[in-house]
Amino acid sequence: MDNLSELKSSYQKTSYKLAQHGPRNVGILKTALENIDVSLESDMYGQGTIITDFQNKMADFFGYEAAVFFPSGTMAQQIALRIWCDRHNNNNVAYHPLSHLEIHEQDGLKVLQPIKPILLGEASRVTTLADIQNLPETVACVLLELPQREIGGQLPSFTELEAISAYCHERNIALHLDGARIWEITPYYQKSVKEIASLFDSVYASFYKGLGGIAGAILLGDSAFCEAAKIWKRRYGGDLISLYPYILAADYYFDKRINNMTTYYQTARKLAVAFNNCAGITTLPETPVSNMFHVHFALPAETVAPLLKELQEKSNIGISGYLVSTKTGCGFELSVGDAVAAIPEAELTQLFNELNTQLQSHI
Amino acid sequence: MDNLSELKSSYQKTSYKLAQHGPRNVGILKTALENIDVSLESDMYGQGTIITDFQNKMADFFGYEAAVFFPSGTMAQQIALRIWCDRHNNNNVAYHPLSHLEIHEQDGLKVLQPIKPILLGEASRVTTLADIQNLPETVACVLLELPQREIGGQLPSFTELEAISAYCHERNIALHLDGARIWEITPYYQKSVKEIASLFDSVYASFYKGLGGIAGAILLGDSAFCEAAKIWKRRYGGDLISLYPYILAADYYFDKRINNMTTYYQTARKLAVAFNNCAGITTLPETPVSNMFHVHFALPAETVAPLLKELQEKSNIGISGYLVSTKTGCGFELSVGDAVAAIPEAELTQLFNELNTQLQSHI
Repeated sequence: MDNLSELKSSYQKTSYKLAQHGPRNVGILKTALENIDVSLESDMYGQGTIITDFQNKMADFFGYEAAVFFPSGTMAQQIALRIWCDRHNNNNVAYHPLSHLEIHEQDGLKVLQPIKPILLGEASRVTTLADIQNLPETVACVLLELPQREIGGQLPSFTELEAISAYCHERNIALHLDGARIWEITPYYQKSVKEIASLFDSVYASFYKGLGGIAGAILLGDSAFCEAAKIWKRRYGGDLISLYPYILAADYYFDKRINNMTTYYQTARKLAVAFNNCAGITTLPETPVSNMFHVHFALPAETVAPLLKELQEKSNIGISGYLVSTKTGCGFELSVGDAVAAIPEAELTQLFNELNTQLQSHI
Repeated sequence: MDNLSELKSSYQKTSYKLAQHGPRNVGILKTALENIDVSLESDMYGQGTIITDFQNKMADFFGYEAAVFFPSGTMAQQIALRIWCDRHNNNNVAYHPLSHLEIHEQDGLKVLQPIKPILLGEASRVTTLADIQNLPETVACVLLELPQREIGGQLPSFTELEAISAYCHERNIALHLDGARIWEITPYYQKSVKEIASLFDSVYASFYKGLGGIAGAILLGDSAFCEAAKIWKRRYGGDLISLYPYILAADYYFDKRINNMTTYYQTARKLAVAFNNCAGITTLPETPVSNMFHVHFALPAETVAPLLKELQEKSNIGISGYLVSTKTGCGFELSVGDAVAAIPEAELTQLFNELNTQLQSHI
């Protein structure tokens, strides 16, 4: 095994983890189903109370006319953009250079749709109003991702967001929210999901990130938008005969965790301080604005991997199972969920003390 | 409530059913998970033992190099055709006029792909070698659906199938099998799934029809084909972080029912005889060649619906929950699974006697 494989293996063996909600195993599904009666009828091709009740619940929660449950956000967002392009009779859309659509979907949007994405601003920072004002071409839709995951989950100010929303609506540009992690930004903005969503014309949110479900997404918009989305869902092969395993889990973990977002956010800030106090570590952003941030080491992965591995073996606390090499060293992403709360405070303090000591000997 | 709603409602209330495996409810999933350890790790974006082991199991079973698990057959087949078109540098494909791709997918293939389907032969009969020989244009791929669901699950002879396969391979036409119901045709052909699949270059099979799983499909081909399929699966939004709820259920019901296909087939033949013995009823095909057939009444739905409703209420046996009007009357589709075996033989005989008596009074 090489350094990184050993790091991964040592991470998997730890009982405690800094990130997420615990292991992604079949127990997640079994727990969600525990109190569901076996006679509850399956959804059938988008019909049935399991799916329609949950879609209505989400529409109410977001303050939208309608909602469609999707197996994935990839599918939901390509479809959202296509609907806006059709409505505006314009195949241009605009999004951040590190949007999920641009870097994680094998160019599905460009291959499956006649849509041309225009990249907004710079990869290293969040999209600004000026980026949208300076677009070289008219676009049907601007997609904003909040928080911007690939740069540590950064956010524009809410004032900037309101200005972007006002500008887009003045110019008849549809504003779509990639809100995969929308739940996680409510504490920083001090706004409800409904208040954030009200700035947009359509929203996608995910059930397996901050909420810790199994898979699946919700797409919200006006009724005609959602009816069109259902036709596209059928075209993409997403109108499964039964989506209930994902829906029941989404519903269960939504109820279980929707009110924990402030705890995750505050814990993320506390952990970021602890990381920043270690020699050669910086976090991005320095002060998290959601439950997530990136941890950067000013040392190469070859140095950091064995160090973390040893620390994980000794402490029984998982810091990271991987490291990505960067120009100035290496790093990983950390999203805070339920798991960290299980770690005794003294052991956490001890972990960061030892991490700092170890790093000091290499800096 | 109108006639058809009352028919549906009476069907749902029956304890026994002629068709399928029993109610599609959450119990299907809970049963499949019963003996699965909660600590079994989820699949992650196509990786992990749950998905790779099952894909390998299916590849072995079909005698193919590789397999990819898909959330739906709609997605799997559009992708299969696209890969063949790319390999042959030709965007023409050919399939039956009542192919699932043509009538049940909101034209996804044509909207999402640059593919032009050419319809083979006539809607009312199965595709023949002559239909393929008479194609007006060169095609990259011929898709055959076995059995041809929309015409009662009819099949060509195995000799015809071999001739089609030989012809396609001589002419460098890829032959893809829409084998949603492939398991169900092995008793009629007296061939294994492997023997049938060997005539094709790629195969799709479904886990929630004859096998009674929850959702999901397998796509089989050579290794390069399956690697390409995984990229397309990502593009379509089908590469879910976790597909295990469907995979575990598919695996469970595959093991449970794969050896029952002869029973379903023989029961279907027996039921078809009983239906054909009723006044004004014919089945398509007259003698089933799989576990399915269509039941046609030479009477309008307005007449048949209340009659079936009353019979269902009286017998506690579900015959059908719907009726489709046709030129010469009305009908429904029947696919035999586990459910029918629960009905006491005498009650089944009594049911058909009463059905016949009722119909005689209207003919």
